[in-house]
Amino acid sequence: MKDKFFKYIKALQETITTKLEAVDGKAKFNEDQWERPEGGGGQSRVIENGAVFEKGGVNISAVYGELPKSMQTYFGVEEANFYACGLSLVIHPKSPMVPTVHANWRYFELYDKKGDLVDQWFGGGQDLTPYYLFDEDAIHFHTVSKSACDAHDPSFYTSFKKKCDEYFWNTHRNEARGVGGLFFDYCRATKEKTIEDWYNFVTQVGDGFLEGYVPIVEKRKKLSYSKAHREWQEIRRGRYVEFNLVHDKGTLFGLKTNGRIESILMSLPPHVQWRYDHHPLAGSEEQRLLTVLNKPLDWV
Amino acid sequence: MKDKFFKYIKALQETITTKLEAVDGKAKFNEDQWERPEGGGGQSRVIENGAVFEKGGVNISAVYGELPKSMQTYFGVEEANFYACGLSLVIHPKSPMVPTVHANWRYFELYDKKGDLVDQWFGGGQDLTPYYLFDEDAIHFHTVSKSACDAHDPSFYTSFKKKCDEYFWNTHRNEARGVGGLFFDYCRATKEKTIEDWYNFVTQVGDGFLEGYVPIVEKRKKLSYSKAHREWQEIRRGRYVEFNLVHDKGTLFGLKTNGRIESILMSLPPHVQWRYDHHPLAGSEEQRLLTVLNKPLDWV
Repeated sequence: MKDKFFKYIKALQETITTKLEAVDGKAKFNEDQWERPEGGGGQSRVIENGAVFEKGGVNISAVYGELPKSMQTYFGVEEANFYACGLSLVIHPKSPMVPTVHANWRYFELYDKKGDLVDQWFGGGQDLTPYYLFDEDAIHFHTVSKSACDAHDPSFYTSFKKKCDEYFWNTHRNEARGVGGLFFDYCRATKEKTIEDWYNFVTQVGDGFLEGYVPIVEKRKKLSYSKAHREWQEIRRGRYVEFNLVHDKGTLFGLKTNGRIESILMSLPPHVQWRYDHHPLAGSEEQRLLTVLNKPLDWV
Repeated sequence: MKDKFFKYIKALQETITTKLEAVDGKAKFNEDQWERPEGGGGQSRVIENGAVFEKGGVNISAVYGELPKSMQTYFGVEEANFYACGLSLVIHPKSPMVPTVHANWRYFELYDKKGDLVDQWFGGGQDLTPYYLFDEDAIHFHTVSKSACDAHDPSFYTSFKKKCDEYFWNTHRNEARGVGGLFFDYCRATKEKTIEDWYNFVTQVGDGFLEGYVPIVEKRKKLSYSKAHREWQEIRRGRYVEFNLVHDKGTLFGLKTNGRIESILMSLPPHVQWRYDHHPLAGSEEQRLLTVLNKPLDWV
C-alpha cells in the first residue's frame, strides 16, 4: 500500500503542477529535492511571481524510521517504527478575487520492533480561502468534494465537511480560515471499509482537486481589482499566517521536530499585512465575508 | 507594591509615548481602553503610519481575579487568585535602517483562598531587532541595559543578557530574533534582595528605555534606503511573526486564554513578506546580519 500510494501522489504532483503552470501561463514550478537525515525525504515544487499565482507549493514527501518521541506522545504509542507519505499543497493567487487553496492527502504506517505492520491509516482534506466571496465558487468547490465522498459513503461529506469547519477554525479570532471543504484523519480498515476502500476514496478526492479549483481560478482571474481589494487580501492573509503558525498541527509538528522548514513554511503567503483593530465597513463585501466566516454555511 | 508599580507603568507609558510622538513628528498614539470581563483591563496606545514609526504599540494592563486553569498548570500551583500588571511595547519603524524594539516590564501577585498574599515577583526585559546591523547601535543598547543592571548587582547583566539570547531564539530557524538585550523573570524577594530592591531595579531598567532606543532612531532615521533594503526588512519581519506566533509564551498565553487579541497582536509588523528559501548574497550586509543572529555576540 505504501508504494502504491507514494506512486499515486508522485503522479498527482506532476498532474497538478503541469495544469497549474498552464493556468498561470508565465511562471513554472521549480523542484527542490531534500533528504531527511533519519530516513526519507521529499520533492518540493514551488511557483513564485506568476501571472496568476503569486506563491504556491505542491510538495510530496515520504519519511520513515524510528517514531520521534514527540510523535509517540501525539499518537499515544510506545517506541515504534513508522512510514509516512503525503502530498501537501497551498496556492496563493495574486488577485484577491481568486481564492487561496490548500490540500493534503497522506498515508501512515506503524511497525512493532519485529518490523511487523501494526497500524495503518489515511488522512487528508482540502479547503478554500476566498478574500471576496462568490457563493457559486464555494458551492462548486463543495459540490466536487461531495461528489467524491458520495461515491464511497453517504455519510462522508456531512461528517468530513463538519470536521473541516472545526479544524480550520481560528479560535482566537472566533472565525473560520475560509469556506471549508473536507477534513478526515485516522481512516483505518474496519468491518465496513478495507484499507483498499480508503485508498480508493482518498485518491478519488485527490483526482478531483483540479476540477474543484481550476474552474474557479479561470473564472476569477480575469476580474479587475483595486489597491483596496489587494489590501484586504493582505490583511486576510495575516489570518492565514495566524492559523498556520498558532493552530495548525501539521505546521507546528514540522517546526518542532526538525522538519524541512522551507517546505513546511511554503504555506505562508508572499505579502501580508497586520493593521491594528481593522474592521470593514458595515454592508461591504468584506463584512459579508466575515459574517460567513463567523458562522460556516452549508454550501450544498 | 501593586499600586505603586501600576502607577509607575502608567506614568512610563505617558513618558514613552510623548517622546516617541516627538521623534516621529507626524503621527500620534491613539488610546483604546478595554475591560477584561473576569476583572481588570488595560489602555493600549497605538501609532500607525508615522513619518518614522510604521506601526507600534505601548500598552499597559492590570488584570486580576481567579487564576485561569491554564495558568495554574503553567505556574504549577492550585486554585488561587492573582493580580498581574505590566507595560508591553513593540515599535516597528518604517525605515529598514532603524531597528524594531520590544520591551515588557511586569509584576505578579498570587493569593490563597483567604486572600493572603502568597507569592509576588517581577519580570521583564527588552530586545533590539535590526534589519541592517550597525554594531555601535547594538553596543549602545546593551551599554544602557548593562548600566541599569550594574547599579543593582554585578551579576545581573551577564545573566539577563544570556537569558535574553536564549529566550528570543527562533529554534526552527536556528537563529536569534535580534541582537538581544535583557530578559528576567520570577524576580522574588530573597535573603539578598527585597521585593523593593527588585522594584528599584525594574523601574531603573524601564527609565532607561528611551535612552537606549531613541538615540539609535535619531541617528538612523535620516539614512536613505532602497526598495531592496525594504524587501529585506519585510522578509526579516516574517521571522519576527514566526517567533511571536510559534514561540513567544506571552503571545500564546494571551491567545489561548481569551486575552484582548488586538492588544496582543499589535506586536505583529505592518507589512511582511515570505519568500521561498530566500538567502542573501555571500558577503552582503544581509548575510552579515544572519551570521551574527546565528551566534549571538557579547556587545559590551
